[in-house]
Amino acid sequence: MGFKNRDVISINDFSKQDILEVLDTAAEVEKNNQKYREALKGYILATLFFEPSTRTRFSFQAAMLRLGGQFIALSNPKSTSSMAKGETLYDTIKMVDGYCDIIAVRHPEVGSAKVAADATAKPVINCGDGAHEHPTQTFTDLYTIKKTFGKIDGLKVGFLGDLKYGRTVHSLASALSYFNPKFYFISPKTLSMPEEHLKELRAKNVEYEEDEDLLKVSKQLDVLYVTRIQKERFMNPEDYAKVKGIYKLKADFLNHAKKDLKILHPLPRVDEIDPELDKYAQSIYFQQAHNGLFVREALLGMLLGKIYKK
Amino acid sequence: MGFKNRDVISINDFSKQDILEVLDTAAEVEKNNQKYREALKGYILATLFFEPSTRTRFSFQAAMLRLGGQFIALSNPKSTSSMAKGETLYDTIKMVDGYCDIIAVRHPEVGSAKVAADATAKPVINCGDGAHEHPTQTFTDLYTIKKTFGKIDGLKVGFLGDLKYGRTVHSLASALSYFNPKFYFISPKTLSMPEEHLKELRAKNVEYEEDEDLLKVSKQLDVLYVTRIQKERFMNPEDYAKVKGIYKLKADFLNHAKKDLKILHPLPRVDEIDPELDKYAQSIYFQQAHNGLFVREALLGMLLGKIYKK
Amino acid sequence: MGFKNRDVISINDFSKQDILEVLDTAAEVEKNNQKYREALKGYILATLFFEPSTRTRFSFQAAMLRLGGQFIALSNPKSTSSMAKGETLYDTIKMVDGYCDIIAVRHPEVGSAKVAADATAKPVINCGDGAHEHPTQTFTDLYTIKKTFGKIDGLKVGFLGDLKYGRTVHSLASALSYFNPKFYFISPKTLSMPEEHLKELRAKNVEYEEDEDLLKVSKQLDVLYVTRIQKERFMNPEDYAKVKGIYKLKADFLNHAKKDLKILHPLPRVDEIDPELDKYAQSIYFQQAHNGLFVREALLGMLLGKIYKK
Repeated sequence: MGFKNRDVISINDFSKQDILEVLDTAAEVEKNNQKYREALKGYILATLFFEPSTRTRFSFQAAMLRLGGQFIALSNPKSTSSMAKGETLYDTIKMVDGYCDIIAVRHPEVGSAKVAADATAKPVINCGDGAHEHPTQTFTDLYTIKKTFGKIDGLKVGFLGDLKYGRTVHSLASALSYFNPKFYFISPKTLSMPEEHLKELRAKNVEYEEDEDLLKVSKQLDVLYVTRIQKERFMNPEDYAKVKGIYKLKADFLNHAKKDLKILHPLPRVDEIDPELDKYAQSIYFQQAHNGLFVREALLGMLLGKIYKK
Repeated sequence: MGFKNRDVISINDFSKQDILEVLDTAAEVEKNNQKYREALKGYILATLFFEPSTRTRFSFQAAMLRLGGQFIALSNPKSTSSMAKGETLYDTIKMVDGYCDIIAVRHPEVGSAKVAADATAKPVINCGDGAHEHPTQTFTDLYTIKKTFGKIDGLKVGFLGDLKYGRTVHSLASALSYFNPKFYFISPKTLSMPEEHLKELRAKNVEYEEDEDLLKVSKQLDVLYVTRIQKERFMNPEDYAKVKGIYKLKADFLNHAKKDLKILHPLPRVDEIDPELDKYAQSIYFQQAHNGLFVREALLGMLLGKIYKK
Repeated sequence: MGFKNRDVISINDFSKQDILEVLDTAAEVEKNNQKYREALKGYILATLFFEPSTRTRFSFQAAMLRLGGQFIALSNPKSTSSMAKGETLYDTIKMVDGYCDIIAVRHPEVGSAKVAADATAKPVINCGDGAHEHPTQTFTDLYTIKKTFGKIDGLKVGFLGDLKYGRTVHSLASALSYFNPKFYFISPKTLSMPEEHLKELRAKNVEYEEDEDLLKVSKQLDVLYVTRIQKERFMNPEDYAKVKGIYKLKADFLNHAKKDLKILHPLPRVDEIDPELDKYAQSIYFQQAHNGLFVREALLGMLLGKIYKK
C-alpha cells in the first residue's frame, strides 16, 4: 500500500512493512537532510491543535520548514477560532481543506482524527485524539529504538507509570508486537495495562509480565519506557493525588539496570525522572524528542508523494 | 483608480469597475496559480486578529504563502500582546508598520479598520470591524456567484436569517446593487434588514421584497444567502434565544427551490444548514470558503503592486 | 570575542567593541538589505514568549523572514503548551533545541534566560527575563541614538518615569556608560534609580543628577528616554495608582527643550506621551521601534555565523 494521500490515524493501520518503510525513510531524511531541503516547497501544512502541545506541534512545523514547506496554525481554538462560535470539527476541516495540502490535528475527543479524515480528501495526521491514539509518537519511539539498538527485534521492554490511560504505551506495545518482544508492565494496580490490550498481546503470542515493583525486573530490561501520570486524564483529582509520583527514577536506579539500558519518555515529564539522570548515556528521551523531527519529515514527504524510501 | 497601496476598508469604496477587476484577477490567479508562486517573495503580511477567526485568517495567511510571501500574526491579543498593557490600536499599527509590508486587521470596534489605515502608509485590509464591514467576504461572495453562474447580472438573490446584524448581508446587498438584482429579505421581524439599507436600495432603484416565510419565495431564487444568527452580536442572551434556529434548512427544502439554486453561507454555520445538505450540488458554501483564497491572493498581489489584471 | 554561537543574556556581557560591532552590522543590514535576503535561508528561529509581547516578538520574527529564514513560535504558554502540564523551562528548551537553530525567549522569571542558555548549545537571545534584562532593546536604543546623532559619545541623556523597575533604563544606562555620557534621572522618589545602579555609575566615573522635576533639567537634554510605569511590575495596585501618570509629556513640553532633543520610548506607551507629540521631529519612538528590526537581523545573522561586520 502506497503512502501518498494516506491518512495516519492509528498505528494499527500500519503493517510491519509499512512501519519499517517509515523508519527507513526517516533515517534517509536524517542522514541526507540537505537533499530534501526543497522537497515540500510550495506545500502548506495546517496544524490544528485543540489541546495543549508544544513538542508535537513544533516538530511538525519544523519538519515542514526543514523540507522547504510552510504551515498555518491553530493553537488555542477556544479563544481564537470559529470553534468559539460553535463550528463542528467536520466543518472546520472542510474549510481548512481549501487552504492547505495536509493536516495535522490534535483534538481531545476519541475518534476525532477519523472525523477529520472523513471530511477531506487530503492527508490527515492524528497528533492525538484524547486518550486514544498518537501514532507519530509511536513511529518516533520505534525510530529511536531502531537507531539506538540497530534493531527492534527481540528486545525486553519495560513500561512504567500510567499504563491505563497512557495512549503512547498502548500504541507502542501494539506496534512492537511485530518484533518478537518481551514486555514488562510496571504500574500501580489502579493504573495497570487494560485487559483489552493484554488480550490482544496474548492473541499475538507476545510474552509479558505485570509487576508493581520496578526493581524486581529492572535487570532484565533493554528499554524502559517511562510515562508521566497525566493529570488531565483523571476525572477525580483525588485519584490523581494517590498515584502521582509513585515511581520517580533517580540516578541510583542505574545500579539496578543493565549497563546498556536505554530510558525513553514521550515527554513532557513532571517529576518521574530526576534531571540528574539526564547526563547519563542511558537517558535518551531528549534524543527521542529530536528524532520526532525526522519521523515527521518522512511522513509529510511520503503522504504528499514527494519523499520515497530508496 | 489603481490598486497599489490602496486600503480595503469598505466594499462601498469600490466602483463596479474596481470590483470586476478584483474578480477577474482572482480568476486569473486561480487559473494560473503556478505563475504566481513567487509573486510576493520577500513580502510580509501582518495578520492582526483581535477577535476570533479561522477562515479569514487562514485564507489570508495561505494566500500569502501561495504567492511566495510570509506572514507574522497576532491571534489572541488579550493575553499575548501589548494590548494587554493598554496600547491603542493606533500605536500597535504604527509599530507593526515597521515589520511588514501589508496589514490585515480584524477588530471588534466599528471604524477600527479606518483607524488602522490612518496609522500607516502601508495597505490595510479590513477583515471585519465589529458589525460594520468585512469587504473581502463580499469579494469572495461575488466571486463565488460569478464563478458559478458565469455572470452576476440580473440574479434573484434571497438573504436568510439575521439581516439586522449580519454585516456580510449588508455589504453583499450593497455591492450586488451594481448588477441589476432582485432581492428577497427573509427574516423574523426583529432581525429584518435595517431601514437605512433599504433606503439605499430604493435610492438605487433596486427591487426587493421582505418576507418572514422562506417557502413563499423560494421558487424564485437563483441564490440563497444563509447567515448564522450571531450570538456575539446580541447584548441580551434572551433576545438571542428567541430567534436562534428559526430557519433551519434541511434536504427537503430543495423540493421547494429551483433545480439550479445555489446556497451560499459565509460560515461558520451552527445549525442553520443541516449537514445532510452538504452533498447536494446546490450547496456551494465550502467552495465559497475556498474561493476566499483566490480573492485574497488577488487583493494582496494588487495592493502590493505585484499582480495586475491582464 | 566572536559572535557565532554566542548567547545574548545581558548587555553587560558585551564590551564597547562588541556593541559597536553590533550597531555597525545593523547599519550595514539596514543599508544593504537586498544583499541579505537569503542570508539565513534554511535556518529556523524559535520564539518562546512566556509573557505578553508584540514588538519584540514581531521584530524577531520579521527579522528572520527578512533574512530568508523561518520561525516557529510559542505565544501563550499557559493555555497552549506543555508548560500547562508542568514542564520546566529547562526541559522545554532541551526539546525545542531539536527543532530550531536559534532561540529567542521571554520569561517572567529573573535569570530564566540563563537557565535557557544552559540547556542548549544553540544561541539563546534574552527577550526579557522579568524585571532583569532585555538586551536587544538596549541595542535598539543605542542604534537609534547612533543613527540619529551620528555618534553616541558625550550625550546628555535624561531618563523619565519608572527608573526603579524599568529594566530598559538600567541596561541602557549601563551600556551608555562606555560613551562618556551625562545622565539625568527624573522620577518620583518611590521610583528612583536603585542605589546599586548608581553605585556602578559612580565606580565608572559617570556624571549624573537625580531630580523629580523634568522642567528643571529639560533644557540640558539631547535625549529624553521616557518609560511607561509598568503596572505588571507592582505587587500592590495602590502603589501603582499613586505614581501612574505622574509625568505626561504634551506638545508644549517642546518649548522647554533643546530644538534638537530626541524623545525615545521603548513602547508600548499608555498615556505618558500625548499622541499629539507624535508628529514632531523630536519624537522618534516609532522609528526606534522600527530600528529594532535591523538590530535583530544583525544579531540573528551574527550569532548564526552568517552576517559579519565588513
